[in-house]
Amino acid sequence: MRHETDLEATIAAIRPPDEAAAAAAARALDEKTKPPGSLGRLEELACRIAAIRREVPARPLEPAIVVAVADHGVAANGVSAYPREVTSQMLSNLARGGAAVCVLAREVGSALVVVDVGVAGAEAIPGVRDDVVDGLSGTRDLSLETAMPRETAVAAIERGIALARELAHDGVGLIGLGEVGIGNTTAAGAVTAAVLGLDPAEVCGPGTGLDAAGVARKVAVVSAALRRHALPREDAEGVDVLAAVGGLEIAYLTGVLLGASAARIPILLDGCVTGAAALVASRLAPASIGSTIAATRSPEPAHAHALEALGLEPLLDLRLRLGEGTGAALAVPLVRAAVAILTEMATFGSAGVSGRTLAAPEARTPADA
Amino acid sequence: MRHETDLEATIAAIRPPDEAAAAAAARALDEKTKPPGSLGRLEELACRIAAIRREVPARPLEPAIVVAVADHGVAANGVSAYPREVTSQMLSNLARGGAAVCVLAREVGSALVVVDVGVAGAEAIPGVRDDVVDGLSGTRDLSLETAMPRETAVAAIERGIALARELAHDGVGLIGLGEVGIGNTTAAGAVTAAVLGLDPAEVCGPGTGLDAAGVARKVAVVSAALRRHALPREDAEGVDVLAAVGGLEIAYLTGVLLGASAARIPILLDGCVTGAAALVASRLAPASIGSTIAATRSPEPAHAHALEALGLEPLLDLRLRLGEGTGAALAVPLVRAAVAILTEMATFGSAGVSGRTLAAPEARTPADA
Repeated sequence: MRHETDLEATIAAIRPPDEAAAAAAARALDEKTKPPGSLGRLEELACRIAAIRREVPARPLEPAIVVAVADHGVAANGVSAYPREVTSQMLSNLARGGAAVCVLAREVGSALVVVDVGVAGAEAIPGVRDDVVDGLSGTRDLSLETAMPRETAVAAIERGIALARELAHDGVGLIGLGEVGIGNTTAAGAVTAAVLGLDPAEVCGPGTGLDAAGVARKVAVVSAALRRHALPREDAEGVDVLAAVGGLEIAYLTGVLLGASAARIPILLDGCVTGAAALVASRLAPASIGSTIAATRSPEPAHAHALEALGLEPLLDLRLRLGEGTGAALAVPLVRAAVAILTEMATFGSAGVSGRTLAAPEARTPADA
Repeated sequence: MRHETDLEATIAAIRPPDEAAAAAAARALDEKTKPPGSLGRLEELACRIAAIRREVPARPLEPAIVVAVADHGVAANGVSAYPREVTSQMLSNLARGGAAVCVLAREVGSALVVVDVGVAGAEAIPGVRDDVVDGLSGTRDLSLETAMPRETAVAAIERGIALARELAHDGVGLIGLGEVGIGNTTAAGAVTAAVLGLDPAEVCGPGTGLDAAGVARKVAVVSAALRRHALPREDAEGVDVLAAVGGLEIAYLTGVLLGASAARIPILLDGCVTGAAALVASRLAPASIGSTIAATRSPEPAHAHALEALGLEPLLDLRLRLGEGTGAALAVPLVRAAVAILTEMATFGSAGVSGRTLAAPEARTPADA
């Protein structure tokens, strides 16, 4: 089959997780020196990873966190507690290693890839990957016009796919998604409402710290945007939603997710912005969601709706609302632990440990008693 | 003040957490490049650690997991899904590094201290600390007689205190508690019921995998034990409860907890057996509980009661029911991450990032509008 674009070829390469590999992992876990199932969600996670990798892992997964950074025209409407220039300031902070996700990635032994996908006023910074599309320094104001041209959305997705492919080539086995962009919980809320057919009031929250008046402004902005773009619409494709009300980093992360899924790499989602990217990915390639693992539960209301729609239960619930990939980073040790249980634990046979028995009183036959 | 015993001296040295240090940590966190409070429970954890250490930490905490292993006479009553010899077999498995907690401790970069506190049939094993008291190879059957003499309980506690002191001297800054002992969720249930005045049916669950008949037996055994020892009793001290219905490893972990608290070392609790040790510690030195952090929520019913009584909310909820310190090990990266946020993140000033602003529309005065 010929595919016209890289996006189409990637979507065609995505398969649902391999349940036979999950079953093989479950059998291997039952041989380990522990009561069956006693490691709870860690065991489920090990099986899920086996299904995504399509084999029982024999080695640790090398993690990388991708932090996509972009500006949002909608920030002009007072929908964030912080001024727009914080996006480029945080890009520098990320490059210098001072941001929260930098600290957490180092702490958990994960690589960190910081990507400029369109930041106003940003110059080339050493250590920052330049994936700016068409020289854009952010989206347009989605409440007034389409956030970006359709071709730009596709190009940003394909840049993300290319990064995932590079990471897979470099031996990365686990990708966490993260983002920075003043105003981006508004775009994420609009995307979530558009994909799931929700009311703006159901998806908009305080983000990084809006007061009640700020949240009301955010709801009004998202409502205006959805009306202007006639969303939700049954026939709206993922790319249409991104172009109308998305963000450059949301499009990019959608691409990273699709590319990772095609490369059999598990993806750790973070908060509500990465959740919006996953919703778009679920429209483009429903099977890709089988490759995702929810790291955290964000208090931003859009996130709970996204998790429910995607059928994901987060590993952590630490009331994080920073984004950046901080939740994804904190979940990395759990994923690595799940794999280590598979690869390193002794079996009942190898360790000479007795298996389950009937407890003494039951083992007696009536004749013995 | 002179103290007759090491236990009394340790109890006298325990102080409540230093709330001034917690407040200093909170102020430091508010200078970091993130919206105030946006790292949720990670920030609360950082403040709690500062309070326990009585200073804002300037360096990572070096972790150690203590796995105390002992046998239980009550195991003769068919209260475990596994035969009693599994205790000594697991001691060997722990020494060889094949048990789950060994794998997880390695994965999170934690030291592991495996302690024999009285295991039947165990010989001296290289790498296992010998803290056997009075040559005992386990407790007596707590449903028929006192589990151990009062002096033995005190001696086991004091051995645990000595270990905590040694670890503090070696520079350990975080101690996780773990245990292995066939039958020990029965002892832990009895201790929990005795300390909290609960009905045995409220605290006994399947442990490592009992069926309904097994759970019923466990309830009957705990009921018989409490009746025989006239527990709960208002005037029963922590040591009385341990002697009557406890376990050698529960006594030992009580000591580790008290010793760590006196040395300003945060303690990560694990499942229901370590929760029972914490309940005993709370009777002996209520302020010691301020030094504890709940790592996980165990499905064993005694644990929920212990957590509620101790006022602790676990960091993780992964449905672990293995014990060994596996939950404590999995929480180590969260504690280290909380400290790293304090010690490594950039501040708004150092990074040149703009602080919170009034959002644009609110910043306009009526005259501007």
